Amino acid sequence: MNTFGQLFRVSVFGESHGACAGITVDGVPAGIPFTTEDMIADLQRRQGGNMQGTTPRKESDIPKIISGVFNDKTTGAPLTIIFENNNIDSSVYEKQRAIPRPGHADFVAEQKFGGHQDYRGSGHFSARLTVGIVAAGVLAKKIIAPVTVSVHVTEVDGENDIETGIKKAVAENDSVGALVECNVTNVPVGLGEPFFDSIESVLSHAMFSIPAVKGVEFGAGFAAARMRGSKHNDAIISSDGKTKTNHAGGITGGITNGNDIVFRLAFKPASSTPKEQTSMNMQTQQLESFSLDGRHDLCVALRAPAIVEALTAIVLTDAMLLAQFSKRVATDF
Amino acid sequence: MNTFGQLFRVSVFGESHGACAGITVDGVPAGIPFTTEDMIADLQRRQGGNMQGTTPRKESDIPKIISGVFNDKTTGAPLTIIFENNNIDSSVYEKQRAIPRPGHADFVAEQKFGGHQDYRGSGHFSARLTVGIVAAGVLAKKIIAPVTVSVHVTEVDGENDIETGIKKAVAENDSVGALVECNVTNVPVGLGEPFFDSIESVLSHAMFSIPAVKGVEFGAGFAAARMRGSKHNDAIISSDGKTKTNHAGGITGGITNGNDIVFRLAFKPASSTPKEQTSMNMQTQQLESFSLDGRHDLCVALRAPAIVEALTAIVLTDAMLLAQFSKRVATDF
Amino acid sequence: MNTFGQLFRVSVFGESHGACAGITVDGVPAGIPFTTEDMIADLQRRQGGNMQGTTPRKESDIPKIISGVFNDKTTGAPLTIIFENNNIDSSVYEKQRAIPRPGHADFVAEQKFGGHQDYRGSGHFSARLTVGIVAAGVLAKKIIAPVTVSVHVTEVDGENDIETGIKKAVAENDSVGALVECNVTNVPVGLGEPFFDSIESVLSHAMFSIPAVKGVEFGAGFAAARMRGSKHNDAIISSDGKTKTNHAGGITGGITNGNDIVFRLAFKPASSTPKEQTSMNMQTQQLESFSLDGRHDLCVALRAPAIVEALTAIVLTDAMLLAQFSKRVATDF
Amino acid sequence: MNTFGQLFRVSVFGESHGACAGITVDGVPAGIPFTTEDMIADLQRRQGGNMQGTTPRKESDIPKIISGVFNDKTTGAPLTIIFENNNIDSSVYEKQRAIPRPGHADFVAEQKFGGHQDYRGSGHFSARLTVGIVAAGVLAKKIIAPVTVSVHVTEVDGENDIETGIKKAVAENDSVGALVECNVTNVPVGLGEPFFDSIESVLSHAMFSIPAVKGVEFGAGFAAARMRGSKHNDAIISSDGKTKTNHAGGITGGITNGNDIVFRLAFKPASSTPKEQTSMNMQTQQLESFSLDGRHDLCVALRAPAIVEALTAIVLTDAMLLAQFSKRVATDF
Repeated sequence: MNTFGQLFRVSVFGESHGACAGITVDGVPAGIPFTTEDMIADLQRRQGGNMQGTTPRKESDIPKIISGVFNDKTTGAPLTIIFENNNIDSSVYEKQRAIPRPGHADFVAEQKFGGHQDYRGSGHFSARLTVGIVAAGVLAKKIIAPVTVSVHVTEVDGENDIETGIKKAVAENDSVGALVECNVTNVPVGLGEPFFDSIESVLSHAMFSIPAVKGVEFGAGFAAARMRGSKHNDAIISSDGKTKTNHAGGITGGITNGNDIVFRLAFKPASSTPKEQTSMNMQTQQLESFSLDGRHDLCVALRAPAIVEALTAIVLTDAMLLAQFSKRVATDF
Repeated sequence: MNTFGQLFRVSVFGESHGACAGITVDGVPAGIPFTTEDMIADLQRRQGGNMQGTTPRKESDIPKIISGVFNDKTTGAPLTIIFENNNIDSSVYEKQRAIPRPGHADFVAEQKFGGHQDYRGSGHFSARLTVGIVAAGVLAKKIIAPVTVSVHVTEVDGENDIETGIKKAVAENDSVGALVECNVTNVPVGLGEPFFDSIESVLSHAMFSIPAVKGVEFGAGFAAARMRGSKHNDAIISSDGKTKTNHAGGITGGITNGNDIVFRLAFKPASSTPKEQTSMNMQTQQLESFSLDGRHDLCVALRAPAIVEALTAIVLTDAMLLAQFSKRVATDF
Repeated sequence: MNTFGQLFRVSVFGESHGACAGITVDGVPAGIPFTTEDMIADLQRRQGGNMQGTTPRKESDIPKIISGVFNDKTTGAPLTIIFENNNIDSSVYEKQRAIPRPGHADFVAEQKFGGHQDYRGSGHFSARLTVGIVAAGVLAKKIIAPVTVSVHVTEVDGENDIETGIKKAVAENDSVGALVECNVTNVPVGLGEPFFDSIESVLSHAMFSIPAVKGVEFGAGFAAARMRGSKHNDAIISSDGKTKTNHAGGITGGITNGNDIVFRLAFKPASSTPKEQTSMNMQTQQLESFSLDGRHDLCVALRAPAIVEALTAIVLTDAMLLAQFSKRVATDF
Repeated sequence: MNTFGQLFRVSVFGESHGACAGITVDGVPAGIPFTTEDMIADLQRRQGGNMQGTTPRKESDIPKIISGVFNDKTTGAPLTIIFENNNIDSSVYEKQRAIPRPGHADFVAEQKFGGHQDYRGSGHFSARLTVGIVAAGVLAKKIIAPVTVSVHVTEVDGENDIETGIKKAVAENDSVGALVECNVTNVPVGLGEPFFDSIESVLSHAMFSIPAVKGVEFGAGFAAARMRGSKHNDAIISSDGKTKTNHAGGITGGITNGNDIVFRLAFKPASSTPKEQTSMNMQTQQLESFSLDGRHDLCVALRAPAIVEALTAIVLTDAMLLAQFSKRVATDF
């Protein structure tokens, strides 16, 4: 349930305001150079602490590798990384607890886990968990090279100029949504598996695990629903499968076709808006107005690129390992 | 790879122009009444043979239950259903083979399977495989009752009036895209599992296995990217979690919140347009213009509702079984 | 549940007295020559219909490949083989139904599936299901070559001379147990995965799915419990890992070490003995004596070699695919 | 690979002489009281540091729960426990490294992981990893109550009097093998899944992951190979499935039948005998005699009961969750 992948398998654990957030990666090939320093850059990109519109909460986010690395190289055994939580103030959550916050997991977690969940800072539902994913993504990026993954925020609050969008959010003191685009280059032909594990299926599965993602589209995506076949079809113009256009986003029949993978994600505005809201107080059974205290992002998507890149690299690592094996054996006959 | 689900697990096999298409369902509870007659209605909806804009190819689509049913009830053993192919004309595919059709799996299948794939009618990549999914969906719908799933085409070729859209496609003799919407009612709270198996993750995984789907969005979806938190958040107005609005599409924190699940799919236009196209002839290594013969849909989405309903019911069956077990045990302590 | 394997995955379905027994193999590399003729020899070895001590029931056991093969080669898509049941007489089972047969699955199946199971000839619990496994094993053997698997019955009813053992069983008209030994040669170093998927774990998992197997031991096995370390340890005498003795049965630390894999299986006597037995009549709630009609083996292990070979080859195929991928990637760094 | 279980899923990580050994348990029902104190008794049983014949190495074995517990109860999120290593002396392993120890994983680990494995104290192959399993077993035992699991050493070095066996080992300064028996009471009918996940399959899979286990037998086990059907069959004498004898070890058709589960394990003598041994020096390519330094058990099986109990409870937890779901749903129809 908290595990993803077939051959390269990540498992997350931890809570926002518990001892730590962590991740275990199983199926790591042995001999890959890997140190805590390697992770710093992407972890800082995820942190977003310096950007306007992101939370002022500062976790030090220092990764601690507690298994699977020896002499600065991967051993082939499960690789576990933990991030201790050290900037914790939980008092606000106790106060809020009777009133499930709209848009949050509060209500569903209470129902699903019978009130036993760690409710502080959304507990196991917190975006804090993505810190481990970013760490594992650093490893995945090394494995898939020369395949490159790059992700950018392309729109904030309807503005293609990101700064403008963020300024509006800050000025109006409300959380805002955003669009994010991912581009993958040097993609080998043949990643993805019919029938159920199309590369679109597996990528979208991973992407919808990111908090606040509410839509995923590949290539022309929703715009394709208004196109004609004669226009949408990407003419193949070389024997290695390169196409004149890329409306398919690099994927045909669910399998990578050698062109760049392109997909976009819709991020809803963060549920934790500073604006006054209304919800049911479960103790009094009365509707109640309230405002959130605490440290929150106005635009969570600003932290997304490092996370989306990491998850994409994790998915592609698994897909490449799966595809390599099938290909190699086939040629032996 | 060709299997989906944890406790209620479907596995597809077969080819468009081979002996049959089929499906095995494992994890079926024993004692559910199930006969071939039960499947007829949904299979006919999928067939679409009477609608304008769908292929004139007529498969009889007669399901044959070859395991897992005894005395017209499920036994608890794997349930296998096959559909023999009996309306096959493969001659056209041999002719076309040197030229991979744009938008089809032809090129990627050739690369991935080294030329050994059954290329006739797209073989294992064919939408023919969805016939088994519709059959399994009939069983799943029985299990999840009183949860109901209903799917409608909401737009064809940019037209909200479906007839108009289809007529345009026929008139201009080109394939067209469409939007499809799914609504699920009577949804229990708590379906979906953190972190990686959010109900959005699992539903989108299933949906992107349907040929021609290029986008999936839940609730407000891509429109949410342009909303503010104060607007998007759905105020909780009753103690069972019902909300005033449903921008989240019935899912918060990746878990169902008791409101209707709502999601939309973007179907690209069918790759098999009657229009002349260009592609690389892999034998001559020359670009070549060609027109497709054969029997094809102008708007594949017209057949989609039965398939999307079936897959949704399959996903929900699995999610309900998973959620029930976790809930019940928890209350024992 | 009815599926086994990670990358090379077999799924069984069917019943003893239903329409068919069958198997689907997913993860088959494309391009392997495979025809129904290839399966005949092993299927006949399994049938045992000519041996004394085996059932006179004659299934024609004609395999029908209904997916995954095109032009006599595997396509890379799921490969399904069915065996239609055509020598069925079920009347005896209705009569017997009230009295669960000792040693059979009758009682547990009734409880587990609430009486909905196909009880005829043990239904899905029947050894009939192994016919598909033998068929899939033929494919697996092709993939693992030059690794060879050979299995022999080494003892029947305590007699190392098999004929003697069988004659005793026939003379005394009682079912008898047996020992079976498996030897695998040309084994590559490195098959098996720590911690839970040791090759011993995975092989024993597969073996205990064979009806009547009650014990599995590797190398010296139970005799090792009475050995000293100085005696049991196999001295490594060459740089490729060859050892002077092979008490470990070719497996150290759960991983193949390049020496022959050796394991033994204990088969209990068939539950279906012709002798009079006693059991509880569940309708009358009285103990009752009865004798079984029907067609049964006195020594089921005589049919075992083809089955054990097949399952071993299936396990090794999966292990080799898993090991190849990990090894190859590791050398890239 | 390092994960076991479907619904109740344990994942081990760590090394003998690295930072820690650890385990993550996913699928834990919420609300189970669980503290570090709960684990002490079983951890001490595993430690065996006070028994003659066990290693004098003393790990403090203090469990640290770093996720999944809040207010001394399980939350339903993944539960991770780590054991820091603090009694480490690795110098001896560097010296030994050129000469793979007979019976150890040294040679296979070097080959499989290309020399990148953590070779100190067998690294990830160390029995040190079982400390996490014992911890998870404490949780599992709570879940399966009133089912009870008890394991005893029944024979050491061929002696049924354990003390005598150990004294012989100490006197002759050689490691010795042992037999271990597991009894499970209050077993519900119906655990285990046909075809491949018989309860015997899953239990043996788990057991063969314990270092030094080379044989597993259920009920009469290998002795059944010399029994007649009329003798081996357990007559059913009550309507709840209780049998007069229990030669089947509580399992028929791979499914629990309500009688006690009984199985036995053969433990080989520890590879680390103090006696002089011979192996190939991989640097000099010469055979070489050597004696092991270090802290080792003469009879590893003395520590086994806590481990075997834990793994059995883990397997049964998973089997009970799986069986409950299938049963409950079935009764709805």
